[in-house]
Amino acid sequence: MRLASTVDARLHAVVEDRLVDLTDALGVAGAGAGGPLLAFLERGGTLAELAALDLDKLPSRPLDGARLAAPIARPGKVVGAPVNYLDHKAEMGEQKTIAEYGVFLKANSSVIGPSDAIRLPYTDVRTDQEGELAVVIGRTASRVDAADALDHVLGYAPTLDITVRSTEDRSTRKSFDTFTPFGPWITTADEVGDPGDLELRCWVGGELRQQVRTKELIFDVAELVAYTSHVMTLHPGDVIATGTPAGVGPISAGQRVVVEIDKLGRLDVPVTSDGAIPYGRRPGAR
Amino acid sequence: MRLASTVDARLHAVVEDRLVDLTDALGVAGAGAGGPLLAFLERGGTLAELAALDLDKLPSRPLDGARLAAPIARPGKVVGAPVNYLDHKAEMGEQKTIAEYGVFLKANSSVIGPSDAIRLPYTDVRTDQEGELAVVIGRTASRVDAADALDHVLGYAPTLDITVRSTEDRSTRKSFDTFTPFGPWITTADEVGDPGDLELRCWVGGELRQQVRTKELIFDVAELVAYTSHVMTLHPGDVIATGTPAGVGPISAGQRVVVEIDKLGRLDVPVTSDGAIPYGRRPGAR
Repeated sequence: MRLASTVDARLHAVVEDRLVDLTDALGVAGAGAGGPLLAFLERGGTLAELAALDLDKLPSRPLDGARLAAPIARPGKVVGAPVNYLDHKAEMGEQKTIAEYGVFLKANSSVIGPSDAIRLPYTDVRTDQEGELAVVIGRTASRVDAADALDHVLGYAPTLDITVRSTEDRSTRKSFDTFTPFGPWITTADEVGDPGDLELRCWVGGELRQQVRTKELIFDVAELVAYTSHVMTLHPGDVIATGTPAGVGPISAGQRVVVEIDKLGRLDVPVTSDGAIPYGRRPGAR
Repeated sequence: MRLASTVDARLHAVVEDRLVDLTDALGVAGAGAGGPLLAFLERGGTLAELAALDLDKLPSRPLDGARLAAPIARPGKVVGAPVNYLDHKAEMGEQKTIAEYGVFLKANSSVIGPSDAIRLPYTDVRTDQEGELAVVIGRTASRVDAADALDHVLGYAPTLDITVRSTEDRSTRKSFDTFTPFGPWITTADEVGDPGDLELRCWVGGELRQQVRTKELIFDVAELVAYTSHVMTLHPGDVIATGTPAGVGPISAGQRVVVEIDKLGRLDVPVTSDGAIPYGRRPGAR
């Protein structure tokens, strides 16, 4: 199933070219800041419960023209993997793996959906795109083994880990509002099969910058979920961005950034510099 | 008002030696994973609404013997300040400020309350205590000036930023489950007055390790809220740990770690090594 949210806080299944509204059937109308899918997961909702719905009897509307939000508006956690593709590792001159680097966290307030825009914070500091495969947790995972890790995954989606190239802690450089485009929807794990056999492509301003197969991941999805769950309990709705391949580069106002992954769809968002300030004018700068 | 939560997901005002139960009066019974205070804040609850309650008419029970939880079980965000006291800065040989370092994020799943224990993850890697003043956001803050920042603060509490001394990203080293003890309650800003005029003391195993006045903060509370809100929108219930003074050191199983702050109370939690593993056995280690 492909699970999409709309900006009016409704949860849908994407069925061909229509959005089938699951919100009332699942009893998640009026959900909180996390959005209706997170409310469903937090109340113990499962893929089996979704599969048991009779979609033909639920109201639907055309996908075309719908204003999609991030499938989870404000995840409990957004975890990132710093250096996790063989080619990006070579590009960055890195010798270590996530077991040495650890994972980092992005603010959940940085998440946006397909109807929003990336806002550059600074007029004079480079900001880069990083196209990535996102893993969405469906079942609480604490210290799970890699062999069991995929049982804890709800599904997958394209994401962008937007990053300012400056001196601050990764959490700051990657957590500005709008820095985690996520969507267009979550495709549940049962429809994806092997998450290590997908092609990811990322364009900026029409130029293909990143193209990789997820089999090039150093820590694959199962290993990454296992590692992360060793550090922190992963709760339903938590998101792990699995790391970016070679081809990271600057983005500019007026460009569109597109990340597309086999079976998972195409996330396409514009870039704006509205509200950007000179770096030297950030609070506390000397 | 002093706002406390109990492990049965009830929200209380601490009035002298009693807990006055606010849960039903505020309509936050059966709140989600964030706990009843976060549910109250997310539905737009304010200090004025709390102040209008007639506490004498609400049920109460003795504070003594109550099992307190973290006042917010799972905040939306837990933000940390890396080097923010003059003396700790000298101790660490640091030259820069948060404007260069940025803030970091801790996993919200690392939060525990006064009835829990800090669990050491590794048998053979040093883990340190960092006693800190926590700021709890009450009203959404985006790009606020320091002059207005305190208007967005709900209140304050003692916290501990527990940290493994290894090579990983700060978010990993500080995000293990149980690494953010928080409480015993939140004291609302109106009862605290100037957050820059408090003494913080932290003991490990009965030894006083940290003692500082918050006027020694490099970025004071208002500046830190302003800086952080420039990077990421702060939502009600988000927590900012303001940084630790000199005196950071290792903690061991069997010890108690205590942090006490003027007007805010005393947080006292034990340390255990139950479940600890050798560092070389973490997932993915070579």
